[in-house]
Amino acid sequence: MKIVTGGITAVPGILAAGVAAGLKKGSALDLALIFSEREAAVAGVFTTNTVVAPPLILDRRRLRRGKGRAIIVNSGNANACTGRQGYADAVAMAALTASALGVSPADVYVGSTGVIGKPLSMEKIKAAIPLLAARLHRRGGEDAARAIMTTDTTVKTAAASDTVGGRTVTVGGIAKGSGMIHPNMATMLAYLATDAQVPQAVLQRGLRQATAQSFNRIPVDGDTSTNDMMLCMANGMAGNRPWKPGSIDARRFQALLDHVCLDLAKKIVWDGEGATKFVELCVKGARTEADALRAAVTIATSSLVKTAWFGEDANWGRIMAALGRSGARVVEDRIAIMVGPIQIVRRGMGLGPDVEKRANTVMKSREFSVTVDLGSGHAKATVWTTDLTVDYIKINASYRS
Amino acid sequence: MKIVTGGITAVPGILAAGVAAGLKKGSALDLALIFSEREAAVAGVFTTNTVVAPPLILDRRRLRRGKGRAIIVNSGNANACTGRQGYADAVAMAALTASALGVSPADVYVGSTGVIGKPLSMEKIKAAIPLLAARLHRRGGEDAARAIMTTDTTVKTAAASDTVGGRTVTVGGIAKGSGMIHPNMATMLAYLATDAQVPQAVLQRGLRQATAQSFNRIPVDGDTSTNDMMLCMANGMAGNRPWKPGSIDARRFQALLDHVCLDLAKKIVWDGEGATKFVELCVKGARTEADALRAAVTIATSSLVKTAWFGEDANWGRIMAALGRSGARVVEDRIAIMVGPIQIVRRGMGLGPDVEKRANTVMKSREFSVTVDLGSGHAKATVWTTDLTVDYIKINASYRS
Repeated sequence: MKIVTGGITAVPGILAAGVAAGLKKGSALDLALIFSEREAAVAGVFTTNTVVAPPLILDRRRLRRGKGRAIIVNSGNANACTGRQGYADAVAMAALTASALGVSPADVYVGSTGVIGKPLSMEKIKAAIPLLAARLHRRGGEDAARAIMTTDTTVKTAAASDTVGGRTVTVGGIAKGSGMIHPNMATMLAYLATDAQVPQAVLQRGLRQATAQSFNRIPVDGDTSTNDMMLCMANGMAGNRPWKPGSIDARRFQALLDHVCLDLAKKIVWDGEGATKFVELCVKGARTEADALRAAVTIATSSLVKTAWFGEDANWGRIMAALGRSGARVVEDRIAIMVGPIQIVRRGMGLGPDVEKRANTVMKSREFSVTVDLGSGHAKATVWTTDLTVDYIKINASYRS
Repeated sequence: MKIVTGGITAVPGILAAGVAAGLKKGSALDLALIFSEREAAVAGVFTTNTVVAPPLILDRRRLRRGKGRAIIVNSGNANACTGRQGYADAVAMAALTASALGVSPADVYVGSTGVIGKPLSMEKIKAAIPLLAARLHRRGGEDAARAIMTTDTTVKTAAASDTVGGRTVTVGGIAKGSGMIHPNMATMLAYLATDAQVPQAVLQRGLRQATAQSFNRIPVDGDTSTNDMMLCMANGMAGNRPWKPGSIDARRFQALLDHVCLDLAKKIVWDGEGATKFVELCVKGARTEADALRAAVTIATSSLVKTAWFGEDANWGRIMAALGRSGARVVEDRIAIMVGPIQIVRRGMGLGPDVEKRANTVMKSREFSVTVDLGSGHAKATVWTTDLTVDYIKINASYRS
């Protein structure tokens, strides 16, 4: 596998653009378009929240056909809790885009992110779409990535390529997200594309598998949004041979999807609102993977654990308490805990102030790992998360003002 | 029912004291004793965390007999994750107390709260117990309440009396807790006493019922401790007639337990770490009470909802998003939301910036209510919680340093 630059537009036949439609304050980019020169197979994964924004309802309907040409996304307004008008606005966004591109409205998918509960300014979007279509470009991936940002402070793109089915195949993507990140696709938008020739059902399965190990492994603040979605277009322009399940080609293609999703997911964690620490948390020695994940997510979303990380304090008692309420089967006197390479708990008991001081030193880094060994089995799960900081509170207390 | 002063020592035959044993820094009270002049029936409720501190393991064993005379509690050290030595220390605390009081060790219950994972300083406790026993006093309730505090900033006591079974019966209590508060008895200690003559099984049932509507309704930060416990001693000194289930006397006694538990629970919420808002959150119109409670707890523990409260921002979209992921059955276009008397959402949609501004004004108070009507049934649940603030982070990042 080769890591490449260019994000989603690293993929042959994929164009993208971003413009400022005026939905955000100032002249920030807030409307993005991704376009495939050829009809693409489209797969998608959506929020598990039962309050679902209208654009996602529209996209789920579109996905029944499993094909498409374009994705239009606005930031600054989530078009959520907006009722029938919200759905009509999503339909109109798709129709206006289709008309500007000369494609069928059924081939256009829609995404929105931002404040919940405010009607979209459709005049602004309508006015901006022709310009947006005119700006489509082979190097427009970064502009598109920038146009879908909300509280994000960094542009998030990723791409990689490998030889699959006798040809070079590329997978590229863009993502946004920095708050409301939780397993099961929390406020997070991700758009991927590939030039692989791949049946829609295979793409859908591959996307679910990649999501399970990436976007669903980044619990940050425990909230899940109404607007989370990920779409992937596969336009077939690589002209590769088809592959069989379990073949080397199948594994290589999956590895490309996995890499792009995990790279984007980690970038979301790095950009966690107000975060000062990036923590790779591994729970191993569990009886089942579900138990390992349950324990990891409970630790990663514990306010007390996260504030201790912020305080650079190896307060392992809070990790023990989180394990105990996680629902995972844990035996207290079998638990071991490491911070980076420093073991601070053995058989459920602390190893004393000296090792804790060394662990506190490890925690002064911007990035460190925490490993919990339950000592009860062979299953494990890794998640990536952040600390909980004073700035997180400030950002989220004043988000709308 | 009559509200009375004196906390747990408002109850005839109950003495209490608090001394500084040196477990906390400086000369803060950190060792509490509650003593019943007559043998009492004892009932208890414990943490649901599977990592359980040694004193609770001891108390659960004691409770099989359902009788007791005294409760000794230290703050400054949770005696949790301390293994066999921790259990031996809890046993020794009980034995030393029993010896100072001239009662059987089997009649002494033990509680601990504070940092997890550090051995108890048994010499300090041993040295302090004789003084503690000598200080027992009919007005010692407040000293005992002060001696069980950790990050608490206020002393928490409550008491009430009523005519039950032909006599005046009093229920009094003390509690501590300000962080790690979550349904199912989060780090929270509560000790109650009553002079009612009541069978242990009736007391146990009554205590569970009171807990379900009070201490289990105060989700603050989502964490659950290894040390939560509540005990109630009933010494029978009121000499009341027994009562039958469902009788007026039964209801009056339950009302006393309910009142004392809810009063203490609300005081814990008021003292939430760094909290600037006290929020009474009611979810009504649910299909079942379990659904109502699920929705209320999800809202009350959402970092995004809580930071918006801190920002005095009626950002109802975050409440909608929390409802959608709560697991409760919700129909988006039936949801109504009120902040105090101001309705801000009708049929799942916002009622505009003017009403939101009025709601923001309501939120400037130290205390306000939020009501969510799911419009789907007749069940409801109320919880009490706080906002999530910059000071919460500061307190918990630096707790051990």
